[in-house]
Amino acid sequence: MVIGQSGGPTAVINASLVGAIHEAQRIDAVDGIYGAQNGIEGLLDRRLIDLRREPASTVSALMTTPSAALGSCRYRLKAEDPDRVVSLLRELGVRYFLYIGGNDSADTAHRVAEAAQAAGYDLRVIGIPKTIDNDLPVTDHCPGYGSAARFIAQTTMDSARCTEAMPGHYPVKVIEVMGRYAGWLAGAAALGKRHPDDPPHLILLPERPIDPATFIKQVRAVLRRKGYCVVVVAEHLTDASGHQIGEAQAQGVDAFGHPLVAGVAQTLVDWVRSELGVRARFDKPGDAQRMSIAHLSETDRDEAYLTGRMAMRYAVRGVTGKMVTLVRAAGPRYACETGLTDLDHIANAQKVLPDDYISADGSGVTPAFLEYARPLIGGPLPQHAELRAERVI
Amino acid sequence: MVIGQSGGPTAVINASLVGAIHEAQRIDAVDGIYGAQNGIEGLLDRRLIDLRREPASTVSALMTTPSAALGSCRYRLKAEDPDRVVSLLRELGVRYFLYIGGNDSADTAHRVAEAAQAAGYDLRVIGIPKTIDNDLPVTDHCPGYGSAARFIAQTTMDSARCTEAMPGHYPVKVIEVMGRYAGWLAGAAALGKRHPDDPPHLILLPERPIDPATFIKQVRAVLRRKGYCVVVVAEHLTDASGHQIGEAQAQGVDAFGHPLVAGVAQTLVDWVRSELGVRARFDKPGDAQRMSIAHLSETDRDEAYLTGRMAMRYAVRGVTGKMVTLVRAAGPRYACETGLTDLDHIANAQKVLPDDYISADGSGVTPAFLEYARPLIGGPLPQHAELRAERVI
Repeated sequence: MVIGQSGGPTAVINASLVGAIHEAQRIDAVDGIYGAQNGIEGLLDRRLIDLRREPASTVSALMTTPSAALGSCRYRLKAEDPDRVVSLLRELGVRYFLYIGGNDSADTAHRVAEAAQAAGYDLRVIGIPKTIDNDLPVTDHCPGYGSAARFIAQTTMDSARCTEAMPGHYPVKVIEVMGRYAGWLAGAAALGKRHPDDPPHLILLPERPIDPATFIKQVRAVLRRKGYCVVVVAEHLTDASGHQIGEAQAQGVDAFGHPLVAGVAQTLVDWVRSELGVRARFDKPGDAQRMSIAHLSETDRDEAYLTGRMAMRYAVRGVTGKMVTLVRAAGPRYACETGLTDLDHIANAQKVLPDDYISADGSGVTPAFLEYARPLIGGPLPQHAELRAERVI
Repeated sequence: MVIGQSGGPTAVINASLVGAIHEAQRIDAVDGIYGAQNGIEGLLDRRLIDLRREPASTVSALMTTPSAALGSCRYRLKAEDPDRVVSLLRELGVRYFLYIGGNDSADTAHRVAEAAQAAGYDLRVIGIPKTIDNDLPVTDHCPGYGSAARFIAQTTMDSARCTEAMPGHYPVKVIEVMGRYAGWLAGAAALGKRHPDDPPHLILLPERPIDPATFIKQVRAVLRRKGYCVVVVAEHLTDASGHQIGEAQAQGVDAFGHPLVAGVAQTLVDWVRSELGVRARFDKPGDAQRMSIAHLSETDRDEAYLTGRMAMRYAVRGVTGKMVTLVRAAGPRYACETGLTDLDHIANAQKVLPDDYISADGSGVTPAFLEYARPLIGGPLPQHAELRAERVI
């Protein structure tokens, strides 16, 4: 078997790799376990490594090592690539090809599966879901999301307390999180709330265009009510005309004559400063939100491992052209088992937040979303102590 | 006694509060334990709370609650304020005033101590050091620094692996950290290195002006050698003429006609893009680096508690006008005890990285710095597994 990792790494993508390795080691029919370095790109370059030569202790340690241990890639297949991959795998006697990734990786795996079928080569191709963005269709959620969501919930709680403690200093804080065109990660910032008016006070979702004047009005209202305001914003946000907030600003050029890019958080901070005359600043955790082992969700890690393990098992059973999915069991207690869906269902679709997960005013999430997301982040978030603060004079 | 918290909060500033409360509870002479809300600003407004009314469980839980539980402030004393504070404390029968903070807070405490002496009122004023920036003189280091340093070391390790796994995607990563005019925090990014050429490859320190052309040359060299490059930069960085990198750019204005501020990380990213033609992006963890309980250094927390406890003890012994310091014991095993220094020594000085902690080329730190900083971040950083990666074809 050959396994590869693709797309943006996560805190648990290596757990899926470990699951597949462990299962492959159990199965007599699998007598070679190869890793493609940098995904399909390395496979096309014949950069394969022997995973049976890795000590068991290294493989276990991958369960708590973030990022793609095999290296990852973002590579768009050329027309001749699927046939080249199939020829190479046939030459090596590879019968199982497992590919861990998101939409684009599912497209890659799908095309390899089609090429194998067209060539009459019995190759079993299985996709293993991975993306912090949680935007893959069919599956209840994606391995990688739970840990990133935990990071965002916890970091928002921690960082908001800083703003709350010193409202006279920087009363407005903007936190920019990832998620491309879907608000699953931004919404997760609400998981640390104990009261409805706890921070974050506004969550700006890619699913809802922003109206700058309304935004300023909302921030002003929160400042009046609470004395400070914490805003969480997804990295991609558009206005009503579809213009992306914080994109290259034609008005400015940098020292080298390059157009200035402000970024969405910087832009919101600028708006608050100029329109409300108050100090504002932003945090942009960036890749830490996809990588942080300190915020690992054990549920997420275990499910990543499970999907890797099941991918190998399905492949040996004869399944091909499918991605493993997570299926949430009905009932009051959270549990997931695995299912299967066609790779091309994954490749060509994107799951954004449904309307009933977005609050009526468009700047927050609903209890239904919180109920969906809460079990995915693992154990409860640590609680901050709060003083009774009984006044003496 | 009255205690207050001041300046930027940290992950362990509440541990100092707890230390002082616990010690005050042990001492018969102390029959009231009051907290000033939002530091000296709240004290001037008579916003005092009764800390004896807080359940013991709440006080203990503060040991793992980030940010200033009493609220903090950045308030510059007006000429009449010290006398007002002394009158109020005298009216309430307060004999001990403990103030947790950095340089500005030491200045505040110093002026209150002077005013008490001038008024002939026997008030014991003790400062408790606090700042993630680690820029207070005399003390070996500052409570708050160790946890922030751990956050930065760990986050750099985690985030760098993401860049390493996908060098074709965003080969250059810039991580912007705090530290005002001192490079203690930026230098801490090197604590996760196992090999000299591990990320971060460049650390840009406020102590060394940046030359843009040299910077571009350095990034190019790292890219050729490693295929990717991770840069850590302090929030304040100047060029040789003293101009601050990323300050308001006169060339650009935003949608509201406000000058654009790029920030230092955004500026470096723009330079890399335009001069090297490669993709680059930045992480800016912001307030998470001062608040993250997930990256708490137990050494830091214990020392924060110790300085709070000792401040109360020194005050009862008759000391006034001093700040508690941490004094590193000689010998191979790390240990600290407390000492004292005059508040006005702290108020008017700032400790930047000494030359022997900065590498000869100015873009990194020396083994001497790492030896200094390593014990402060608590236990060893979690190690990432690395594959042997034996090629099969």
